[in-house]
Amino acid sequence: MITKPKFAVIGGGSWATAISKMLCVNLGEIAWYMRNQDAVNHIKAHKHNPNYLSSVEFDLNKLRLTTDINEAVAYADYIIFAIPSAFLSAELEKMTESLEGKVIFSAIKGIVPESSLIVGEHFHKMYDIPYDNIGVITGPCHAEEVALERLSYLTIACGDASKAKIVAKCLSGNYIKAKISDDIIGTEYAAMLKNIYAIAAGIAHGLGYGDNFQSVLMSNGIREMKKFIRKVHKMKRNINNSAYLGDLLVTGYSVFSRNRMFGNMIGKGYTVKSAQMEMSMVAEGYYATKSAYKLNQEYGAKTPIINAVYAILYEGKEAKEVFRKLTEKLD
Amino acid sequence: MITKPKFAVIGGGSWATAISKMLCVNLGEIAWYMRNQDAVNHIKAHKHNPNYLSSVEFDLNKLRLTTDINEAVAYADYIIFAIPSAFLSAELEKMTESLEGKVIFSAIKGIVPESSLIVGEHFHKMYDIPYDNIGVITGPCHAEEVALERLSYLTIACGDASKAKIVAKCLSGNYIKAKISDDIIGTEYAAMLKNIYAIAAGIAHGLGYGDNFQSVLMSNGIREMKKFIRKVHKMKRNINNSAYLGDLLVTGYSVFSRNRMFGNMIGKGYTVKSAQMEMSMVAEGYYATKSAYKLNQEYGAKTPIINAVYAILYEGKEAKEVFRKLTEKLD
Repeated sequence: MITKPKFAVIGGGSWATAISKMLCVNLGEIAWYMRNQDAVNHIKAHKHNPNYLSSVEFDLNKLRLTTDINEAVAYADYIIFAIPSAFLSAELEKMTESLEGKVIFSAIKGIVPESSLIVGEHFHKMYDIPYDNIGVITGPCHAEEVALERLSYLTIACGDASKAKIVAKCLSGNYIKAKISDDIIGTEYAAMLKNIYAIAAGIAHGLGYGDNFQSVLMSNGIREMKKFIRKVHKMKRNINNSAYLGDLLVTGYSVFSRNRMFGNMIGKGYTVKSAQMEMSMVAEGYYATKSAYKLNQEYGAKTPIINAVYAILYEGKEAKEVFRKLTEKLD
Repeated sequence: MITKPKFAVIGGGSWATAISKMLCVNLGEIAWYMRNQDAVNHIKAHKHNPNYLSSVEFDLNKLRLTTDINEAVAYADYIIFAIPSAFLSAELEKMTESLEGKVIFSAIKGIVPESSLIVGEHFHKMYDIPYDNIGVITGPCHAEEVALERLSYLTIACGDASKAKIVAKCLSGNYIKAKISDDIIGTEYAAMLKNIYAIAAGIAHGLGYGDNFQSVLMSNGIREMKKFIRKVHKMKRNINNSAYLGDLLVTGYSVFSRNRMFGNMIGKGYTVKSAQMEMSMVAEGYYATKSAYKLNQEYGAKTPIINAVYAILYEGKEAKEVFRKLTEKLD
């Protein structure tokens, strides 16, 4: 058994930066790929990412920084993807190095728009990676609090428990506790679905609903999530574990959440386009809404909240009226 | 069947005021008892409660205000108690009117310190009220948001479903949706226990833990609550319904919550006594912690969060150290 394998982190955003920080506590060296040459240059000169979690100082001796994804892939045994799901396909197209024998962990909380698959399924179906070599890193964990070294709990899921244990060990530290799970499908769907509920929470807030309603929305949200995931992959799981309910709450109640912010703007009357332009970034939940809604045409789970968000984002329905009807369906 | 029975509200606080407001939407008249003669005089002169939810204007033609609890009890078929549990015994001692044939609803979220019983059990055991005449009104519902007429959902539980329906009907309105439940024991225990978790959330915040940990605490809290309630009264219930999980969330995440505020002060280093004096009011969770802890000596549910709060509030243990150990037990 390799106890300290070589890791590569793919991505230059806040979550990739947080994961790199965690790994550097336990490992002598990691490869870290990001597209942006300026960001790489800045880190090499100033020891911190200029764009995300810039308070985090890195030991440059530990970083093999590169803007060549193939260099990072060739180096590593374990590859952690932490880029927005919307950019995954474009990155994978650059890849000429084989992924055979590599262990792929997804820290992406979304669905791949091109395949409508969650990331683990995408690697499994498109790249023939066996589920024993596929894993998920999930929260509840805001990257911003990792930067502040505030105690956070991660769940590491993999078809092969020994690999989940290795990743958990390499991420754990004074302020990170990582547990393992065998629910590789469920944890990743939860991480994707929670962003839709965070958009819903934001819309409600934007429309003027209060804390009483927000708690009812989250209570209905976790029940809806449970039904949805059970249709996708039936197994014994406690939906109230941190990887599902905790992750929903940290996103739904958070001021850091891009998805909640996006929903809030929609609730306040911005169009989808203007909200996206104003935020100048992608809210994962926007794509997740479409994919989850379409998928559920097949599964037939009762998902009034997802349906409501879909109607607002993709069918041009008025948020106020959609939510008025939604309130009749919640309890 | 009496469709519009006579109601009395017992209590002059914010929740009693909110319930009186809801009832006045649907009823031509209610009796409203409070101890404070000045408050009664003020309402009669100015149409609002001077101390709580003072923005709420009442139609004086609908209010039979009294400082004599017996007058209110004699008048009503349905009596809603909405006073702090610590004051219930003292109020009941004043009562000379019989409760026979009366329907008693508890809107109290706590335990009666003298009997260590939840309110429904207290009336059942101490006053021989049959469970068919005992009910519970539970949230998630901040009284402050009722004053603002923000959409809120209530759960009305009673041994006799027809009585729950009547109360639900009399409380419902444009901004209040009330559903019924037969889990009279579980909903009341949940309403009591959630205050302990809100104290825990406050302590964590006061100690500097962040949103990531808060979500883990709530995720563990609902699982702990489920185990506890199952030991008390085993029946089929979905702990993620609004009356349980929703109520936990609205309290645990709220800035309005007295229990969370009390915990926050403890986390910041106040002694229990100085926090209580500073707040000049009773945090229900303080008593609930002791009762739940003692009860659980018998039940033996695994309740690390309740145990931690008990150790801090009643055994003089240092919050920082107790929580450090608690973090090892959560996942």
